[in-house]
Amino acid sequence: MYIAETQVRVRYAETDQMGYAYYGNYATYYEVGRVEALRQLNFQYRKMEEDGIMMPVTELKCKFLKPAKYDELITVRVIIKELPSVRMFFHYEVIGEGGEKLNEGETTLVFINMLTNKPCRAPGYLLDKLRPYFE
Amino acid sequence: MYIAETQVRVRYAETDQMGYAYYGNYATYYEVGRVEALRQLNFQYRKMEEDGIMMPVTELKCKFLKPAKYDELITVRVIIKELPSVRMFFHYEVIGEGGEKLNEGETTLVFINMLTNKPCRAPGYLLDKLRPYFE
Amino acid sequence: MYIAETQVRVRYAETDQMGYAYYGNYATYYEVGRVEALRQLNFQYRKMEEDGIMMPVTELKCKFLKPAKYDELITVRVIIKELPSVRMFFHYEVIGEGGEKLNEGETTLVFINMLTNKPCRAPGYLLDKLRPYFE
Amino acid sequence: MYIAETQVRVRYAETDQMGYAYYGNYATYYEVGRVEALRQLNFQYRKMEEDGIMMPVTELKCKFLKPAKYDELITVRVIIKELPSVRMFFHYEVIGEGGEKLNEGETTLVFINMLTNKPCRAPGYLLDKLRPYFE
Repeated sequence: MYIAETQVRVRYAETDQMGYAYYGNYATYYEVGRVEALRQLNFQYRKMEEDGIMMPVTELKCKFLKPAKYDELITVRVIIKELPSVRMFFHYEVIGEGGEKLNEGETTLVFINMLTNKPCRAPGYLLDKLRPYFE
Repeated sequence: MYIAETQVRVRYAETDQMGYAYYGNYATYYEVGRVEALRQLNFQYRKMEEDGIMMPVTELKCKFLKPAKYDELITVRVIIKELPSVRMFFHYEVIGEGGEKLNEGETTLVFINMLTNKPCRAPGYLLDKLRPYFE
Repeated sequence: MYIAETQVRVRYAETDQMGYAYYGNYATYYEVGRVEALRQLNFQYRKMEEDGIMMPVTELKCKFLKPAKYDELITVRVIIKELPSVRMFFHYEVIGEGGEKLNEGETTLVFINMLTNKPCRAPGYLLDKLRPYFE
Repeated sequence: MYIAETQVRVRYAETDQMGYAYYGNYATYYEVGRVEALRQLNFQYRKMEEDGIMMPVTELKCKFLKPAKYDELITVRVIIKELPSVRMFFHYEVIGEGGEKLNEGETTLVFINMLTNKPCRAPGYLLDKLRPYFE
């Protein structure tokens, strides 16, 4: 299992007139969390995309437990529970400044070869980074 | 069962560098769909909020089947399968210009009395609008 | 001079905790306004981009006179005061439901040949659509 | 004169199909920049708003010199050239990873007393933080 955490501060742009972070922004918080989780493994999503593999999201689930507020420094915890094959599963927990869980969710992403526009296996250099956490 | 459809055109702002509507924007498309679905019943979400009841989302699920493209005129179909009580469930299908299903999802929303900040029952004037579809 | 109007409804996603449409969203309202202004001329921005010409924005100015509110059906008036050459200038007025001006602004866009990544002249088929308004 | 810098990483959500950060997102980068510039003075915008003073933007200008790319770690430099009175002026420069200027702009904000909804002077505790830079 691989776990990584990233901090994100809720922007004014992300609030709505309830005074909360708008529910659609969690998808972005998850994106930031997973990209940073991979960066902490010394893996750059940007590089993989430049190499011709992209990872669209095929499924998203979110539970909104408590609202995140403006300017709150939230922690996005990303949990990878299994080595990716053609698909990669990410679990998320968003933790508020006071330590309480605000949100939890998961996404499924699929590796796509941009030349053929078809699904492909996770690249070896990603698996190499992750494998130590699954032994 | 109550079903309503709304058309939304994908904005340049909503695309990402894959050339697709970014996955986080579907939460907004769902929001537009459900607000317009209620407006077609002659119910304004805005008025209810002015009357002191708000409806935060407590759960979101999305399946991304095919990408929506820039400038595509997508149809957001909203399906309400049961009368709301303290919670209200919405199902969604997003249909592309060519008639194919791009995305499907669901959200759970809860009625909150803004004075007490506690859950409350769906207001009678909303139930009155919906009841004819559930008889 | 060519003038066109488009209506846009302010989404919950676009509000902020002041209860107003967030100031950064006007750039998107302008985008929607200019794309629809061109569509009303039977010109599709999307097609031009598929043909290899894109139009990045090089300058943006906005004056925020009054806030737009949630669910308000605003009108984006787009004014083209001169025929484009390598650059194209758009002026905007955003009008609220009550008829009052909420915002005014302007953008400069430049035509870019996507093959060479260099500026180019406005395509003839766009000039043909616009010319009748400048005679 | 007071100058402060903040780093922001361009999110996938913020890119568009040109492969650039969408032009409307600079307003958000400016927002992050000015809030962090004030935080570096030990001033929290959030607190001021809780105390009943908000700062809507009344004017925005941006020049887009070069595009910011996905995952680029941009620097938002905020420059305050004069002490605020009823209005506060911010200047911005956005610097790319390679050190080149990508964007420059300015905003005007006005202090509003949320009780009366009328303009008011900058609070003393903000002026106290800024004054040392203007002596």
